[in-house]
Amino acid sequence: MFGNYLSDVRKKQPHIHCITNYVSANDCANLLLASGSSPIMADCPLESAEITALCDGLLLNTGILNPEKLSAMQKSGKTANALHHPVVLDPVGAGASRFRTESVQSLLKELRIDVIRGNLSEMKALFCHAEISHGVDAVASDRITEENLPEMTKLIRQIAAVQNTVIAVTGQIDIVADKNQAYCIHNGCSMMKSVTGSGCQLSALTAAFITANPEHILESTAAAVCMMGVCGEIALEHLKHYEGNSAFRNRIIDAVYCLDAETLDKKAKYQIF
Amino acid sequence: MFGNYLSDVRKKQPHIHCITNYVSANDCANLLLASGSSPIMADCPLESAEITALCDGLLLNTGILNPEKLSAMQKSGKTANALHHPVVLDPVGAGASRFRTESVQSLLKELRIDVIRGNLSEMKALFCHAEISHGVDAVASDRITEENLPEMTKLIRQIAAVQNTVIAVTGQIDIVADKNQAYCIHNGCSMMKSVTGSGCQLSALTAAFITANPEHILESTAAAVCMMGVCGEIALEHLKHYEGNSAFRNRIIDAVYCLDAETLDKKAKYQIF
Amino acid sequence: MFGNYLSDVRKKQPHIHCITNYVSANDCANLLLASGSSPIMADCPLESAEITALCDGLLLNTGILNPEKLSAMQKSGKTANALHHPVVLDPVGAGASRFRTESVQSLLKELRIDVIRGNLSEMKALFCHAEISHGVDAVASDRITEENLPEMTKLIRQIAAVQNTVIAVTGQIDIVADKNQAYCIHNGCSMMKSVTGSGCQLSALTAAFITANPEHILESTAAAVCMMGVCGEIALEHLKHYEGNSAFRNRIIDAVYCLDAETLDKKAKYQIF
Repeated sequence: MFGNYLSDVRKKQPHIHCITNYVSANDCANLLLASGSSPIMADCPLESAEITALCDGLLLNTGILNPEKLSAMQKSGKTANALHHPVVLDPVGAGASRFRTESVQSLLKELRIDVIRGNLSEMKALFCHAEISHGVDAVASDRITEENLPEMTKLIRQIAAVQNTVIAVTGQIDIVADKNQAYCIHNGCSMMKSVTGSGCQLSALTAAFITANPEHILESTAAAVCMMGVCGEIALEHLKHYEGNSAFRNRIIDAVYCLDAETLDKKAKYQIF
Repeated sequence: MFGNYLSDVRKKQPHIHCITNYVSANDCANLLLASGSSPIMADCPLESAEITALCDGLLLNTGILNPEKLSAMQKSGKTANALHHPVVLDPVGAGASRFRTESVQSLLKELRIDVIRGNLSEMKALFCHAEISHGVDAVASDRITEENLPEMTKLIRQIAAVQNTVIAVTGQIDIVADKNQAYCIHNGCSMMKSVTGSGCQLSALTAAFITANPEHILESTAAAVCMMGVCGEIALEHLKHYEGNSAFRNRIIDAVYCLDAETLDKKAKYQIF
Repeated sequence: MFGNYLSDVRKKQPHIHCITNYVSANDCANLLLASGSSPIMADCPLESAEITALCDGLLLNTGILNPEKLSAMQKSGKTANALHHPVVLDPVGAGASRFRTESVQSLLKELRIDVIRGNLSEMKALFCHAEISHGVDAVASDRITEENLPEMTKLIRQIAAVQNTVIAVTGQIDIVADKNQAYCIHNGCSMMKSVTGSGCQLSALTAAFITANPEHILESTAAAVCMMGVCGEIALEHLKHYEGNSAFRNRIIDAVYCLDAETLDKKAKYQIF
């Protein structure tokens, strides 16, 4: 099933307007190209709405945020909503500062977001009024594990219901849920945490998947999360003994470039609740 | 002949001031270093003119544009003109928004540009008042092909004549022309479209080539375009079966680093009209 | 001895707030992850102090500087000083423009900086009122060589004494000194100059080392400088004949990822004066 969503990305080649951060922008662009979609990056409020209108889907990533970029996100988000373009929000660093948290909250309030993709501490900072997020890494005590999976899945589905959106929380185990259903995904490997912006890349890939499959937001988001994990596994298999996280970063993008629908379906490991 | 222009880059090691975008800045810098030239990147209007004066050539790339960066480009461009430093303009995204198009037009009006390097849709948006550019990719109906090559070459030479500059339009076939002469270059491979900023990188390389060969702007621009294509071909030859666009990106830069003048001359495929 | 400082980075996994430039931000982030530390990047003055407070150490890199980023550096620097977090300053481009030089001078005046890591021309521009720095490359006449090593070491120690900080000057030979002692480090290879931001990466690594070893600022800075050189040597050993500076860049980060304390101690080449 997930393979079909990938095939649609390759076939439709959606243009994704990315308003994102300079740390991972190059990797996000190359990952989108690897997937068959086309990135267009522009973050100036003087033009962002026009750029959004030229594209098919929108990615909002709050890494390295500033007021100008936030303004561009608001304008692009409204245009995307008016044109019924799918929108992914990656609330990078929510909880790490008042400005970041309040900015994300304003985006959530003003825009219709189709998918929120982040880590558990960002979700808790936004929706559970819990402890402060420690930057881009999930707080250790907040990890999704086999033991707390049922509880976590319930929590994510509750958030999805309240926000009326799809939530994708990634970690050791990934949970992708709307109010009705949850995918728990067991692909990936721990070395992915050693690649800067691997979450940003997944959010970009998610934007490509849901834009190519707008009738199946939940399922195609799960497919994107699964694909990123599968590509991490393939990258690890190809890694030579003296290679590290830089080679691994390249090999993940290469794996996205090479992956076909059949292999994705064969390697996907997930449960549906 | 093209090999001599490369040798001059390696020998003179020109310093290139780059005002460019954060998506491809790192790749552009490493590509310039691979060529033997030195990148200096600075985009703040408070200092851009001073930085330009320290360097030997200037690259203006309008990707991820904003008013501050545009102001820096204007100040640096005027300094470069006053000091007779060669200037390359890459009008990234011209046609994609009113702000982008008008900004590029203001640069063309106020500055003496030696080479404009872009894709066909950007050129048409700027000079032919044609349909809207679709971001950074050439509009499909606007491709340069074997069939329309004579017509396209004539069009590019007309633009070059009106603008009194060298125009380099890259695509499946590349055309580099001034009002008198055109090089049609057949190097490269389609996979280069899967590398983000491959056009930006070529524009940076072009700045290095014309700065090292200021008496031969047309010919050294053609040499840079040819070299980028040759390096794409070499990168493709070295690609392993499980590698994709990320390995390819690295291998192009590596090929620039390793290429010698003789190999460039041997692999160059072009016609002169 | 240096191996122990590396082990402390791996063990303590310090969070480093980086206010840096978009050319090398991705490489700096991946290098920090390779070392075992965690980068958190944020450069907006509306939040920078809060981000600093969440982290354990601070890196200030003046590449691609603008007034907003300078303001963020001042706020973060004061917070880091108040919280006794170690601070590394990389004065990229000091001497290349009045704005850059004066900005760095204001940071030096207002903040307690633990380590200044740069090239010789930057140091001379800041502290010796000498000729103008040529961007990010050390002026040729200002190289550290075997012949002038005693003289240079004395100069660096004088600067360190006046500034009451540790100075790390990198070039063909590296000198790391405080007012009492100097390490002259002979690791590394000339190809490292062909990687953009290799100095920025070293400054980030230095921030990780001193944050994990705050009682040994001088020694752990020398260890970071040594490690970067050792990883350059290892990367060069693994380089294939058709590979260039892009593969080399990746292999340096990979070498940081793979290096263990014993290998660092075995390969370290330095003298203490």
